[in-house]
Amino acid sequence: MRRVQFILITVLALPILVCSQTQHETDSTVIRSIYTEVLANGECYENLEVLCKDIGARLSGSKEADKAIAWGKALLEEYGFKNVHLQDVEVPHWSRGDIEEGWIESKGEKHPTKICALGGSVGSGGPISGQVVEVKTFEDLEVLGREKVEGKIVFFNKAMDPVLINTGAAYGGAYYQRGKGASESAKYGAIGCIIRSLTHALDTFPHTGGMSYEDGVKRIPAAALSTVDARKLSKSLKQDPELKYMLHLSCVKYENKIQANVIGEIPGTEFPDQYIVVGGHLDSWDIGEGAHDDGAGIVQSIEVLRTMQALGIKLKRTLRVVLYINEENGNNGGKTYAERAKQSEMYHFAAIESDAGGFTPRGFRFDGQDHHYSTFKTWSDLFDPYNIHIFRRGHTGVDIGPLKDGRVALFGLVPDSQRYFDFHHSDNDRFENVNKRELELGAATVASLVYLIDSHLIP
Amino acid sequence: MRRVQFILITVLALPILVCSQTQHETDSTVIRSIYTEVLANGECYENLEVLCKDIGARLSGSKEADKAIAWGKALLEEYGFKNVHLQDVEVPHWSRGDIEEGWIESKGEKHPTKICALGGSVGSGGPISGQVVEVKTFEDLEVLGREKVEGKIVFFNKAMDPVLINTGAAYGGAYYQRGKGASESAKYGAIGCIIRSLTHALDTFPHTGGMSYEDGVKRIPAAALSTVDARKLSKSLKQDPELKYMLHLSCVKYENKIQANVIGEIPGTEFPDQYIVVGGHLDSWDIGEGAHDDGAGIVQSIEVLRTMQALGIKLKRTLRVVLYINEENGNNGGKTYAERAKQSEMYHFAAIESDAGGFTPRGFRFDGQDHHYSTFKTWSDLFDPYNIHIFRRGHTGVDIGPLKDGRVALFGLVPDSQRYFDFHHSDNDRFENVNKRELELGAATVASLVYLIDSHLIP
Repeated sequence: MRRVQFILITVLALPILVCSQTQHETDSTVIRSIYTEVLANGECYENLEVLCKDIGARLSGSKEADKAIAWGKALLEEYGFKNVHLQDVEVPHWSRGDIEEGWIESKGEKHPTKICALGGSVGSGGPISGQVVEVKTFEDLEVLGREKVEGKIVFFNKAMDPVLINTGAAYGGAYYQRGKGASESAKYGAIGCIIRSLTHALDTFPHTGGMSYEDGVKRIPAAALSTVDARKLSKSLKQDPELKYMLHLSCVKYENKIQANVIGEIPGTEFPDQYIVVGGHLDSWDIGEGAHDDGAGIVQSIEVLRTMQALGIKLKRTLRVVLYINEENGNNGGKTYAERAKQSEMYHFAAIESDAGGFTPRGFRFDGQDHHYSTFKTWSDLFDPYNIHIFRRGHTGVDIGPLKDGRVALFGLVPDSQRYFDFHHSDNDRFENVNKRELELGAATVASLVYLIDSHLIP
Repeated sequence: MRRVQFILITVLALPILVCSQTQHETDSTVIRSIYTEVLANGECYENLEVLCKDIGARLSGSKEADKAIAWGKALLEEYGFKNVHLQDVEVPHWSRGDIEEGWIESKGEKHPTKICALGGSVGSGGPISGQVVEVKTFEDLEVLGREKVEGKIVFFNKAMDPVLINTGAAYGGAYYQRGKGASESAKYGAIGCIIRSLTHALDTFPHTGGMSYEDGVKRIPAAALSTVDARKLSKSLKQDPELKYMLHLSCVKYENKIQANVIGEIPGTEFPDQYIVVGGHLDSWDIGEGAHDDGAGIVQSIEVLRTMQALGIKLKRTLRVVLYINEENGNNGGKTYAERAKQSEMYHFAAIESDAGGFTPRGFRFDGQDHHYSTFKTWSDLFDPYNIHIFRRGHTGVDIGPLKDGRVALFGLVPDSQRYFDFHHSDNDRFENVNKRELELGAATVASLVYLIDSHLIP
């Protein structure tokens, strides 16, 4: 406790000390105070527990998403942030229903498999059954042709590439199966589509996630198999190419609903009309607890404001937290936020997103102007004591993406990516799989970035 | 598979290509082939499962340590490594026995606590009971004096400092309680010593670890409380300063035993009498499965040789794997290895240790000559695609430490440290808590370092 108080005093005394300190020393002191505050007194882990355990999965359109919105608004108010309000967003409302079953039927025996409907899939209208064609790519489907696919269930079984160091790149390289596999299969007359779950882990958790149907193509049901079951099915097909797979999904699509982005602020002292946004997405998929995806980003973003307030760090610009709705299946939260900002001619100076899991932070990706990027890269020395070393251009975040206008500086927190897809979109994405220190370090890293953006970026 | 074959061919064709490639390009290609081999075809994760699940905890002197030695030797032989042999090492033999119990007795009620004996503690000779004095430091004991400590149980309750980024530093700063707390307490007449477990996690796992008694000071029993129970005891003491703690440990010290370091090699093509050693320690504490500490280092070290062999990378020097015994409570494996090497005038060119957990690798610490350090730091560009960014001087490893002679280049793998002490020396250090990719990345990182040492370090 003595240490915290000492650093707090140092920060508050900055105006006095600044004449005898270099800017670099001042920045170092403030950043150290931020990490100390979050690691010693952080509240993001406890907040995540409430979000995961009291609410849990919270897909857009669900009652749980309504609860999460109410929880977020109440928490921002409890912290005393200003201008706390909801911003209406129209969101889709889809439910997987009560039934999701998949069986391998081979030589008179039935073998159950662990599956889950892909998000947005149609129901199967009762159990459907068909022979299985295993493919890895859309080219494989083309080679097989309608003759060999019609009336069957297509099984996409391309594993994520294990040799890529960035697991996000491996996910990107295998995503096509989930995103477009159903419509591509339907073009050749398939009656259903099952995919190997997008994860490096070999286990029994099926992983859901968004998919879309192509206009004018028959909509067939689509589900993900756990990787253990994908392996089993592939092996069974070699032994019995005539085996059948039975698929039963009870998904339903309802009318769109109105839900909301949740917003709160700490007003800027010099340029209150210029905004620095920190955010993540409040919705999650409908299985698991949405702990890493993206409960972590939500509680880290709130922690950034809590930390500034606790340390009395006065930012020139308004710091705004946005808990976006509907990242997972529409991004209507991010799109709506950017549209309204444009309509009301708000000046978004910078936006930062945390949506890659609550793992040890490694750095940031940046998207914006060259002179901002040059300044950004000079901060690597300040972050070195915290093992933050990635300062690259690249994709920053789905929610903040629509804000891109050639002027705003966009940043995405880059945590270590190795474990992310073990949990992503599955029942395994639970609070217990988030480490308190790793989560806190991410929050402190974003808070430090906010301080540096406000102090050093020049419009 | 196509990718792996392509890179393999590229590596084998190096002598032909080298004239048209810069050295940096050659190095990049070899390192990429190493990471690809380990991530696509690695066997370290499966080996770790066998070590953890078929053998489990393996404290020096135990039958399980004997089994681990036999397993290690058989595995090195199975891989076809050369000169596979055991090196006799005298080790202590201590057992916690069947009883370890600790109760808070307050206002007529008994509250059990989760405890474990510290490694090397004496037994309590039946249940002992006494009032509790809570302290944080040895200075606190001095202030209390014999009057307030005699006949009581001393409770060390200094938490690891959460604000240090490197958790190893936080461990180092709190270690004194475990290492010397018992003897320091006995100097003031205490009858027993209990310490808060050395971990950042707030949970119910007690964490054991080595302790030593000072010569000429009465040996009193010592145990670790889980952090949840340490918090409970501290709170109870505030409500009832007269409460008693009952401690019952049945530890026994037996005669020393002869066990062994396990050694295997791939002979060097140019300088077979110069050795590059990779290693970790085969023994573990006697609870949990020794998965991170140090099953990970063991299987990673073996994987380094497997990878060189699989890729056909010919090193100039002999690459030797050493599975050290007795790191945890004596380091007799490391000391014996270095003594024998000195006696037989072996030239150890470099030694690398992995003993900080099977987490995402971040870099290395180095201890050795300045010109080696200068060369070492130039490799950061080659490691950048793998997010390896720490190239610092510092402590490298307990096992390889005794090799230090002013000439040998010592390296310690530095994995991400945030989760390590959640598992360290506890029943929570299990195979399930090791991530396959993180473990493999560590192995590939050490293998790449070995290649660079052999290619570029000049004696």
